[in-house]
Amino acid sequence: MRILGIDPGIAIVGFGLIESRGMQVQMLQYGAVTTEAGLPLATRLYQIECDLEALIAALQPDAIAVEELFFNNNITTGIAVAHGRGIILYTAEKCGVPLFEYTPSQVKQAVVGYGKAEKAQVMDMTRRLLHLKAVPRPDDAADALAIALCHARSATSLLARGDGGVKQTV
Amino acid sequence: MRILGIDPGIAIVGFGLIESRGMQVQMLQYGAVTTEAGLPLATRLYQIECDLEALIAALQPDAIAVEELFFNNNITTGIAVAHGRGIILYTAEKCGVPLFEYTPSQVKQAVVGYGKAEKAQVMDMTRRLLHLKAVPRPDDAADALAIALCHARSATSLLARGDGGVKQTV
Repeated sequence: MRILGIDPGIAIVGFGLIESRGMQVQMLQYGAVTTEAGLPLATRLYQIECDLEALIAALQPDAIAVEELFFNNNITTGIAVAHGRGIILYTAEKCGVPLFEYTPSQVKQAVVGYGKAEKAQVMDMTRRLLHLKAVPRPDDAADALAIALCHARSATSLLARGDGGVKQTV
Repeated sequence: MRILGIDPGIAIVGFGLIESRGMQVQMLQYGAVTTEAGLPLATRLYQIECDLEALIAALQPDAIAVEELFFNNNITTGIAVAHGRGIILYTAEKCGVPLFEYTPSQVKQAVVGYGKAEKAQVMDMTRRLLHLKAVPRPDDAADALAIALCHARSATSLLARGDGGVKQTV
């Protein structure tokens, strides 16, 4: 099962593709879709959609996983990111790829085993689980890989594959 | 100049089309794009995009006007509405229609002449300015007409039409 994790944003939309077989996971590709700061938001959203659509066509994921949004810090940035997240959801639906959403604590729980883990711990466990020499850059791509891993290890994913009824609460 | 005002939402996306000539304005059409509450957000966003694209093709607006988002009340609803607003911006760009954004106080200032006007005042002035017998329903459509009126009366719109250099700060 090919799982595409996507980390929402406007300037940088991180993505990470992994192959998941049973409890085995392998990193296939990661990177980021970027837009220029000076452009109008509508233009940037349009560019993100076009790039994501091309990416999905090229990577052929079986599932797309994205994090739910929580506004803790900058609400203005948060509103813009929510605009961008809308485009990700729209594109997944347009491309007919099943979409799965996880909370930040579900991602931490699935990757580190602790729902309140620090960001650095999530990054390092993502690197180790995917047998990478270094944490992927940019951070947005590493975040996207962590979300993909979360889906690979989630009950939803395991049950969908029929992996002998392994149930995991994340 | 045909101006399409759009009021962002997920369950109800209000729209209102007006024709603006100099200081004369006329209501052409209003209504709402709606989605069912039980559907996944991604599906609802996709439906909104499809319906808006068809609407823009049918109504042939010269400009689209939308309000900027401010989160005062329910932040969870606000995040969902921001997802939907992203779809509106994306669709305007995709359809190649110039997009204009106004703050709620700019809309109130342009329609009522007072940036802190009550919602009921904005609704009533919208009705009067467009020579309607009653305030349009749903409220989302009336809001959309108010946003379209704001653009018709804004400096941006007047200067774009070359209306003798009338400058209005809204």
